[in-house]
Amino acid sequence: MGIDNIDMAIINHLQDGRMPFKQIADFLALSEATVRTRVKKLRAEGILDITALVNPESLSDQQVVLIGVCLKDMDLVKKAEEFSELQGVVSVAVVTGRFDLILTVLLSRDFPLVNFYTEEVSKIEKVRSVETFVVYKSFNLKVPFTLPISGTTTAK
Amino acid sequence: MGIDNIDMAIINHLQDGRMPFKQIADFLALSEATVRTRVKKLRAEGILDITALVNPESLSDQQVVLIGVCLKDMDLVKKAEEFSELQGVVSVAVVTGRFDLILTVLLSRDFPLVNFYTEEVSKIEKVRSVETFVVYKSFNLKVPFTLPISGTTTAK
Amino acid sequence: MGIDNIDMAIINHLQDGRMPFKQIADFLALSEATVRTRVKKLRAEGILDITALVNPESLSDQQVVLIGVCLKDMDLVKKAEEFSELQGVVSVAVVTGRFDLILTVLLSRDFPLVNFYTEEVSKIEKVRSVETFVVYKSFNLKVPFTLPISGTTTAK
Amino acid sequence: MGIDNIDMAIINHLQDGRMPFKQIADFLALSEATVRTRVKKLRAEGILDITALVNPESLSDQQVVLIGVCLKDMDLVKKAEEFSELQGVVSVAVVTGRFDLILTVLLSRDFPLVNFYTEEVSKIEKVRSVETFVVYKSFNLKVPFTLPISGTTTAK
Amino acid sequence: MGIDNIDMAIINHLQDGRMPFKQIADFLALSEATVRTRVKKLRAEGILDITALVNPESLSDQQVVLIGVCLKDMDLVKKAEEFSELQGVVSVAVVTGRFDLILTVLLSRDFPLVNFYTEEVSKIEKVRSVETFVVYKSFNLKVPFTLPISGTTTAK
Amino acid sequence: MGIDNIDMAIINHLQDGRMPFKQIADFLALSEATVRTRVKKLRAEGILDITALVNPESLSDQQVVLIGVCLKDMDLVKKAEEFSELQGVVSVAVVTGRFDLILTVLLSRDFPLVNFYTEEVSKIEKVRSVETFVVYKSFNLKVPFTLPISGTTTAK
Amino acid sequence: MGIDNIDMAIINHLQDGRMPFKQIADFLALSEATVRTRVKKLRAEGILDITALVNPESLSDQQVVLIGVCLKDMDLVKKAEEFSELQGVVSVAVVTGRFDLILTVLLSRDFPLVNFYTEEVSKIEKVRSVETFVVYKSFNLKVPFTLPISGTTTAK
Amino acid sequence: MGIDNIDMAIINHLQDGRMPFKQIADFLALSEATVRTRVKKLRAEGILDITALVNPESLSDQQVVLIGVCLKDMDLVKKAEEFSELQGVVSVAVVTGRFDLILTVLLSRDFPLVNFYTEEVSKIEKVRSVETFVVYKSFNLKVPFTLPISGTTTAK
Repeated sequence: MGIDNIDMAIINHLQDGRMPFKQIADFLALSEATVRTRVKKLRAEGILDITALVNPESLSDQQVVLIGVCLKDMDLVKKAEEFSELQGVVSVAVVTGRFDLILTVLLSRDFPLVNFYTEEVSKIEKVRSVETFVVYKSFNLKVPFTLPISGTTTAK
Repeated sequence: MGIDNIDMAIINHLQDGRMPFKQIADFLALSEATVRTRVKKLRAEGILDITALVNPESLSDQQVVLIGVCLKDMDLVKKAEEFSELQGVVSVAVVTGRFDLILTVLLSRDFPLVNFYTEEVSKIEKVRSVETFVVYKSFNLKVPFTLPISGTTTAK
Repeated sequence: MGIDNIDMAIINHLQDGRMPFKQIADFLALSEATVRTRVKKLRAEGILDITALVNPESLSDQQVVLIGVCLKDMDLVKKAEEFSELQGVVSVAVVTGRFDLILTVLLSRDFPLVNFYTEEVSKIEKVRSVETFVVYKSFNLKVPFTLPISGTTTAK
Repeated sequence: MGIDNIDMAIINHLQDGRMPFKQIADFLALSEATVRTRVKKLRAEGILDITALVNPESLSDQQVVLIGVCLKDMDLVKKAEEFSELQGVVSVAVVTGRFDLILTVLLSRDFPLVNFYTEEVSKIEKVRSVETFVVYKSFNLKVPFTLPISGTTTAK
Repeated sequence: MGIDNIDMAIINHLQDGRMPFKQIADFLALSEATVRTRVKKLRAEGILDITALVNPESLSDQQVVLIGVCLKDMDLVKKAEEFSELQGVVSVAVVTGRFDLILTVLLSRDFPLVNFYTEEVSKIEKVRSVETFVVYKSFNLKVPFTLPISGTTTAK
Repeated sequence: MGIDNIDMAIINHLQDGRMPFKQIADFLALSEATVRTRVKKLRAEGILDITALVNPESLSDQQVVLIGVCLKDMDLVKKAEEFSELQGVVSVAVVTGRFDLILTVLLSRDFPLVNFYTEEVSKIEKVRSVETFVVYKSFNLKVPFTLPISGTTTAK
Repeated sequence: MGIDNIDMAIINHLQDGRMPFKQIADFLALSEATVRTRVKKLRAEGILDITALVNPESLSDQQVVLIGVCLKDMDLVKKAEEFSELQGVVSVAVVTGRFDLILTVLLSRDFPLVNFYTEEVSKIEKVRSVETFVVYKSFNLKVPFTLPISGTTTAK
Repeated sequence: MGIDNIDMAIINHLQDGRMPFKQIADFLALSEATVRTRVKKLRAEGILDITALVNPESLSDQQVVLIGVCLKDMDLVKKAEEFSELQGVVSVAVVTGRFDLILTVLLSRDFPLVNFYTEEVSKIEKVRSVETFVVYKSFNLKVPFTLPISGTTTAK
């Protein structure tokens, strides 16, 4: 999964994710095709994401929590992947220190913490303990946002 | 900082941050101008970000750490804001539980943890304790990426 | 379980739980029947309780303890309910943080802590750990009070 | 602050806080005047409260949190009293164990946790640390309820 | 297991465990027979011990440790009793707080900590965790002292 | 502070603190004078105590607590000595691990925990934190017993 | 495993591990043969090691971590030995306090922490929890260094 | 502080710290002078140490302890260096996680833990807390050994 200096320069301009490739190409003295091809390749390889992020404080019924998880066995990567597939889980970090994993989870009025634990975390075996940190104010914390599929609800 | 159902539908399509506004407008039966104007407004208000995120595991000399911070006083919001301005800090969450703040920090070969503490955190008063969690594997954890300004280095 | 502004105004006057409904009705320009009907409905729905509370420090052989409980599985609501039915348990809160549940328990000379653990908590499976906080002084901490049924004793 | 067997029998009947004194008197073979006088005395001495309690889950914008507080000095009773006078604090327990005090606090949309810390707890000196437990489900946890004084707001 | 004021006055004089009963009787205006009878009864009932205690710092190859034990079940009294019968255990306290039991243990050159755990504690089931506190200096900490039975050794 | 094998044999017989020196001398083939002299010397040097100990569970209004203390400075021995002089403190151990000191304290109805902290511990500077473990059941835990000086009370 | 004063004097000179035995012999007025024989014997008995140690900070792709381990049973010595045989483990200490074992582990780019846990620690049963401390700066911390056997790699 | 493949191959042979340079040179097809020069340079630069290590369990009056230290400020490297200069300190690691530093300390009968804290650690300011782990059994844990300078003692 190599990434070279030109890739990094392109990514750097994509802090504004809507900047036209033509404009980036001009800045970097590249052809627009080069920029387009490289961005496409980086996205395909899972290295680069260009996406909308939302300030959770602007969404009145959304709530971000961080959860420290301790596991009962050493299959850390597999467990982390299982957690990453649960509803509400934005990301999973395997960490050193007093926890084995730290999750970032996005809750809503329709999907409160109690549902996350009883309906989602309960699917995963060998969880020794969980410790929830409710985020009640944040700076530069932005999360991806997805509407529930129309016609259904994410939770009862 | 209102955000209505149309805003949410537009943001939902921007999971692909490069999707042309024309295409989103067609999906939602809006005019392209409406989509463009609403996106512009949401970005101006700090609700919406459309940006490049990078998988830190693809950047061989970058390292993400989470840091639990306990403070000596109750001026939590002001302290959180001070931390958010330190070099390397991606985001700051004010949290319930055994820590007062949880930071996400992006380190590099040129800006290792010891520099973060001795050069950056040392600027902030009334820090009672810090506890670092090194992220050594992750799922869906993506971070913004910025090149150091050319001609200078971010750290000695 | 709706509760409207009029309900809240009535409840507000019931800080003195013995205030005559007539007097509340006059304050709020309602009929006494309206007040009576609404109070009855709120009590029936489990929203409102009008009850005697006792300062535990005035009862020389009663002792309040708070107990932080960690569980072995994620069936938090069911476990909380099981704990709420144990002798001595006043209330159960499902909480974020280092504990999963926090219990408020009322002990007495005839029902000491050791009995609570060996006779009551021992009935519940999947308890990982308990941590007791003995309340030895309090402000505004009041608890419901029930006499043991005459002719029997609550504990040997 | 004596409380005798007759007092306890009366209080026992006041689990229904609206029960007429006449009815209690009949049950206990006392005169109504005796019941009334004793209740009045117990309330005046701060031993007995007859009051409305509300299930916090029925109030959509209210939130109960428990807060473990560690202090920097040994003036536990004085500090507990100071905390008991802060806005939002329902009760304060001085406890054995890893915390010095455990507070029960009632928050609302207009008085969120961040305000409780920055506007209220910040008034109290010699607080070493706080640890918040957010109650997200409860059994038999009921709290007193007070409307903000009309014409003003409890928080900005 | 009653103990009256005369018992307490007698015990008070037995801070010097060798004080002649005649002398105590004279102090308290009792007969020597009364003192002797009461002391005998208190010892027989397990209320009173008159015994030699040794300052562990004067015994160069003896070491006192305190051990916090957490258990996996609620059978606290039974477990405490089992621990009290292990070699080296001086006393066992069932406690509130982060441990379930706190043991006082007397080790020696011939019976070091590693033997205590691998040969003694290993006999007891349902021990969740142990945490040893080595006493390396003390004030007024005195422990009973027993010679190993001559001709045998307490440990290999 | 030497202690030889003969001393140890004598002490061993003093598990019954009232055993006549003549009898010990006979067992050990020593003269009664030798036993008497050695015991006197061991007591004078603070190595040996022969004293009454009481089972705290037999004293209905007495309560033993253990207290883990963390200090703000490294003057551990001096601090331990200061604590050993406080009312109610039976012994002080300087320990390795999460606490710096562990105290054994004897409380009574007239000298409850809140008084121990606000009147006694408050005299000692540089105490970082305290954590109380209430002993609610014990095996072989015995404590010295002293009557308050007649005509005065140990606490208000 | 005796070691006498002469042994200690010889070892003392071997702080420079390459010092000729002749030179040590001259310093200590011994024969070179005596020094050689004693050193050989001490090494054979596992008391003395003369070895190369490397400053881990000079090896850019090596990383030292310390790991606190809690076990589920009391077979501490056997478990410690099992850990000592895992790839990457430099040493194992059985300790008092909140951990049962503390490991020193040497990781590399080819043998990162996630492999240590999923491939090595996972072989050991009855591990209750692990807590990793990443060493990111050190003084006088030196570790043995071994090249992987040529023609193979230590990890995939 | 570069170190190349030849350096690593040489160091690899120095697991036996006394191996003649001639022999290493022959193994690696280098000249003896090359090996000698490179070893000298590596030692001069502080990368390589060739030294005697002793199994602490073979030294009956020596004791290894590990100490977790939390600091009051962020000057971690400077503090670590100060600790590394204290008597008894073998090495200092600056670590992530619940401690800021972890020390390895070698104690002896003449230099017990209480002296290490009251005479040595007390010299260092801004130490928030210390937590000692006593090593009572170890595998492959070896420590440097130094005799006290003859004619003096290391501690009173």
